[in-house]
Amino acid sequence: MPAPTIAIFDSGVGGLTVARAVVDKLPGAHIRYLGDTARLPYGTKSAKTVVRYALQAAGLLLREPADALVVACNTASSCALPALQERYDMPVIGVVEPGAARAVEASRTGSVGVIGTERTVASRAYHDAIGAIDPAITVHGQATPLLVGLAEEGWFDGPVTEAALRTYLGEWLGDDQRRGIDTIVLGCTHYPALKGAIGPVVDELLGRPVTLVDSAATIAQTLHQRFGDVPGHGRIELLATDELSRFARVGGRFFDLDNAHMEVVELLP
Amino acid sequence: MPAPTIAIFDSGVGGLTVARAVVDKLPGAHIRYLGDTARLPYGTKSAKTVVRYALQAAGLLLREPADALVVACNTASSCALPALQERYDMPVIGVVEPGAARAVEASRTGSVGVIGTERTVASRAYHDAIGAIDPAITVHGQATPLLVGLAEEGWFDGPVTEAALRTYLGEWLGDDQRRGIDTIVLGCTHYPALKGAIGPVVDELLGRPVTLVDSAATIAQTLHQRFGDVPGHGRIELLATDELSRFARVGGRFFDLDNAHMEVVELLP
Repeated sequence: MPAPTIAIFDSGVGGLTVARAVVDKLPGAHIRYLGDTARLPYGTKSAKTVVRYALQAAGLLLREPADALVVACNTASSCALPALQERYDMPVIGVVEPGAARAVEASRTGSVGVIGTERTVASRAYHDAIGAIDPAITVHGQATPLLVGLAEEGWFDGPVTEAALRTYLGEWLGDDQRRGIDTIVLGCTHYPALKGAIGPVVDELLGRPVTLVDSAATIAQTLHQRFGDVPGHGRIELLATDELSRFARVGGRFFDLDNAHMEVVELLP
Repeated sequence: MPAPTIAIFDSGVGGLTVARAVVDKLPGAHIRYLGDTARLPYGTKSAKTVVRYALQAAGLLLREPADALVVACNTASSCALPALQERYDMPVIGVVEPGAARAVEASRTGSVGVIGTERTVASRAYHDAIGAIDPAITVHGQATPLLVGLAEEGWFDGPVTEAALRTYLGEWLGDDQRRGIDTIVLGCTHYPALKGAIGPVVDELLGRPVTLVDSAATIAQTLHQRFGDVPGHGRIELLATDELSRFARVGGRFFDLDNAHMEVVELLP
């Protein structure tokens, strides 16, 4: 069987954390990635707008054949997956279901936290996905939108990121209702880049180790289950809808761009 | 003379700091504001894309007659003003020229700082505008993109904003080249909201009082020079290209929305 082509789309560079996890797990797979940088972020836009953008982005990515489509954007995964699955006859993998399954597996207390953009948290997509697997689990959502900007700035740790985490999570985790949380889903593809800062802060706030669910790693596992081992070195093609300089500068913080072919594409409705 | 209608556009809610300053100075003027919230932020996008978006936004705003168009977005002002001025036969006022004029007026040392989005700083629009008035003045730019997210989060002061300001400005103002700065242009319409935090930090870092140039206030002065006193209570019409809930929630931090008519408009393509 020839190496599979994995099409990945995100609103920007955040999904490159997913691309990296896929390359680590299936090094021979071909990656075709689209970052809709002309219209990011999706997380503050309406569900209707996000569905429209997602269909346009997928249409462009799948002009060339692929074996799977990964929606590496929590906002688009939580709004647009049904529309995409209806349109395309191939595995369409969002970030929500794999993350939800991993959280259910990891939690012992039955109390799971989800952090993400306003749109992802408001959509209650993780609440629904976790509830569909195990309705006994309680899910607590907290919007932490500024973490995207922090990751893009390359501030993976340090005083600003730590202050932001304490502001967002201090009161939230301090509440009695949420003190039982033992598993937190990083519900935005940018967040794995901040894992090194998030882990110590939540462990300290809750006074015990907390499991962080990293959607990039869980998607790579899902693809590995489907395609098995894929040795070798696949082609890496990175497309963006707006200028490459920023995409490369920020994206290079998440993904090794040395062997990637990069290109700007037009994405008009 | 009937009260003038001032059309104002911005990529999002930041320009509401300008709308507020205009209402304070010309309370009888009618305000017609458009926030292109479906496509924000402009600051990380290419100049070509920003020009296209600005022409579309102005086209929609000026379907109904107005007496002046204010481009209350530094990114659009620094890229799209010539294209807009060519297309419309009315005063088209950006934020760059008024801010530049005010900075030249305020500086005694001849050393001016400009903080803004990556795009605004890279465009060197303030460098050019200040140089056109007084070529002897040295202009130093520093990109501080995360401040937009901080203002939208309503974190006008506090530990996160202070840590971000120290990270962005500490090393920048610590450099010998920039120790003479006595005036800093807030080169992004969101930043006036953070003025209360920026002032003390820069004063402390430089060890003396620094003048902050607030583009919202300077635009209002420019309009006042043109239209004179406009007493009364004008109509306030606020349009956005994406859902109003977030626009209202965040915008309400910058502008009193109680008497405003709000509406979502389509802006295609």
